[in-house]
Amino acid sequence: MARFSISRTVPLIVLLTDFGFKDSYVGVMKGVIRGISRDADIIDLSHNIMPQDVAEAAFVLSASYRYFPEGSIFASVVDPGVGTDRAVLCMKADRRLFLAPDNGLLNVIAERVEGAELRKVTADEYFLKDRSVTFHGRDIFAPVAAHLAEGLEPAKLGPVVTSFRKLRLPHPVRTADGSLRGQIVYIDQFGNLITNIREATLARSFSVPPDKVVVHAGGREIRGLARTYEDRQEGELLALIGSSGYLEIAVSRGSGARLLECEKGESVVLTAPAKGR
Amino acid sequence: MARFSISRTVPLIVLLTDFGFKDSYVGVMKGVIRGISRDADIIDLSHNIMPQDVAEAAFVLSASYRYFPEGSIFASVVDPGVGTDRAVLCMKADRRLFLAPDNGLLNVIAERVEGAELRKVTADEYFLKDRSVTFHGRDIFAPVAAHLAEGLEPAKLGPVVTSFRKLRLPHPVRTADGSLRGQIVYIDQFGNLITNIREATLARSFSVPPDKVVVHAGGREIRGLARTYEDRQEGELLALIGSSGYLEIAVSRGSGARLLECEKGESVVLTAPAKGR
Amino acid sequence: MARFSISRTVPLIVLLTDFGFKDSYVGVMKGVIRGISRDADIIDLSHNIMPQDVAEAAFVLSASYRYFPEGSIFASVVDPGVGTDRAVLCMKADRRLFLAPDNGLLNVIAERVEGAELRKVTADEYFLKDRSVTFHGRDIFAPVAAHLAEGLEPAKLGPVVTSFRKLRLPHPVRTADGSLRGQIVYIDQFGNLITNIREATLARSFSVPPDKVVVHAGGREIRGLARTYEDRQEGELLALIGSSGYLEIAVSRGSGARLLECEKGESVVLTAPAKGR
Repeated sequence: MARFSISRTVPLIVLLTDFGFKDSYVGVMKGVIRGISRDADIIDLSHNIMPQDVAEAAFVLSASYRYFPEGSIFASVVDPGVGTDRAVLCMKADRRLFLAPDNGLLNVIAERVEGAELRKVTADEYFLKDRSVTFHGRDIFAPVAAHLAEGLEPAKLGPVVTSFRKLRLPHPVRTADGSLRGQIVYIDQFGNLITNIREATLARSFSVPPDKVVVHAGGREIRGLARTYEDRQEGELLALIGSSGYLEIAVSRGSGARLLECEKGESVVLTAPAKGR
Repeated sequence: MARFSISRTVPLIVLLTDFGFKDSYVGVMKGVIRGISRDADIIDLSHNIMPQDVAEAAFVLSASYRYFPEGSIFASVVDPGVGTDRAVLCMKADRRLFLAPDNGLLNVIAERVEGAELRKVTADEYFLKDRSVTFHGRDIFAPVAAHLAEGLEPAKLGPVVTSFRKLRLPHPVRTADGSLRGQIVYIDQFGNLITNIREATLARSFSVPPDKVVVHAGGREIRGLARTYEDRQEGELLALIGSSGYLEIAVSRGSGARLLECEKGESVVLTAPAKGR
Repeated sequence: MARFSISRTVPLIVLLTDFGFKDSYVGVMKGVIRGISRDADIIDLSHNIMPQDVAEAAFVLSASYRYFPEGSIFASVVDPGVGTDRAVLCMKADRRLFLAPDNGLLNVIAERVEGAELRKVTADEYFLKDRSVTFHGRDIFAPVAAHLAEGLEPAKLGPVVTSFRKLRLPHPVRTADGSLRGQIVYIDQFGNLITNIREATLARSFSVPPDKVVVHAGGREIRGLARTYEDRQEGELLALIGSSGYLEIAVSRGSGARLLECEKGESVVLTAPAKGR
């Protein structure tokens, strides 16, 4: 057999679900994909989204997708409405394709990206035959993603839609006294508390340098932003701009979530001498 | 370098173990496979079978394997008897290959499928050299699966066997009063309680439509089957035919296992006006 | 499209981290790798190293790497010093490549293998642009591993270094009374307690056959080594040479960690009539 090097042109399929790793659900989705596309690369983005937490899935997807090459196909299945008449969407945005239930999961990206095109997936000839009403990950998302990987045009999946479900994601707000109020939207497994305050928002909101900003969270005050987790003593609370570009509260070599006993949704307030105005 | 598309003909290797994800055991198996077959696709079906629970592995495998393409090679290593003289089996069934210890894991499929052919794997030239007595996943199952992926004929692995260990899996039974008694055989991570009662058995057992069947479990009564999890109010107990074709007890947007405090092995009884007789 | 079989020559990238599976960190690393190398095979060795436990990562890597084919590229990211001025190393050893922070992770292999060559990775043209100071797994390790997979010469990454951080890993010691004192360095998810005492060390230390050695651990005495977990009654404590070649304390069909209430770092002492001297 000749041995030579080759570059595949078949795109990536990236999976994001709340199925976890205990059961065979994710494995079965990959089996279905492989039955249609033997060459698609399949990458797990995460399968440990909090069960049925669409907002968490939306945050993770929007913060991560840019690190995957153009042409990647994202199948996101966090789907409390499975089996109801909620639609399945296929979005073309930022030179990638996104499949998800019409429950707001694709919202964040659709709003941020110019020219996102959304379609309602109605062409059931690309679904698994004898499909169930309880496992669309296997019966709809996996086969449709595989057909897209094999070159199926999104236009074949169904009509363009302009109205789709929005997710009410909390945005940081400026309050009357010039402070900036955001909230914790994700807690990672190190216990880092990730907020919805982006670096750009922070820079726009305050004229002082980052070491003058004061972060209020969980009844504590953190004075100034650190650059890395190691900028503070072991066990010390700190705030920094994390790797996804969001303000993050952490403990050096420890867990911010444990120290602050904070949960998702709790407020984080930033104060500093306000810019101009 | 030329860029073009290519379809691989090397089959899938599907792994099912109780090794979990904490340790490097699964990763090492994949390294061994790759040392023999650089092109085999490797898919994880599950590595979180309850430790040494052969019956659970048998259930997961039999409910899942059909979703993988023909030619797939399944290496199932739930193996409390590793290092004893228990044999390793290679089964050809339903146009797929199955490797497993001779402990009943392949039983369910062997019984259901016409013409399953089982061999005892004795050809140790396909095992890892210097093999251990405690990690046959790495030393026997991984290399044998890889050789099969590379085209090795199962006949080369060893002689056909007709006697092999059976697993006493509970079957649903009709009781004298016409009810159907099954049991919970699997609890998924959403807390859905999956029984051993298949849709066909249910249809055969009762003449009434599904919405007249009464399900008794954990001291509770559920009247009629739902079609989807969303057919009931949030928090309400329900029964439906799940995505694997088995009767399942669940809670809409909640956990059936938590509500009923049920464990694997507990009885589930169905009653309804019996058919004929 | 022609269907034929092909052998890839692009090497494996093997990932070892403490990132866990809850977050998208591992998935994002794979996305970055794929953006540079579409054909690299990516295998997860483990992502559940105890957070920031460099010694555990060093143990797992040194015990596992030999099962991966020559040419494999290992990217090990257990990195409490991320964002500080700690260097990133690329080691060529035993016909494989190893990337890791300069924190002692590569120590064990460097010491055991003849002719290991270590380089400091300084060529930031192979890093991700706009890299963060908190996620070098994504911004440095993933892209550098991908470039190596695509054929980049390690010499292009930076200068050879001869001084690098050592990890003080405990070695077993002979005590005055002729006994051998080691310790528990890893506990797997079955609760098997894996010590730092290798089979060869044991053989060198005692002249008696293995069934005469007495193992003292957690206040208990185990007389003689078993060959397999099944050599003892269910629930019985046993000691054996595990699949990685290290002395291991286990319970037949049970958990050694639970029975002995032992933790990592606890002493294990072997006694027997000493050899010669």
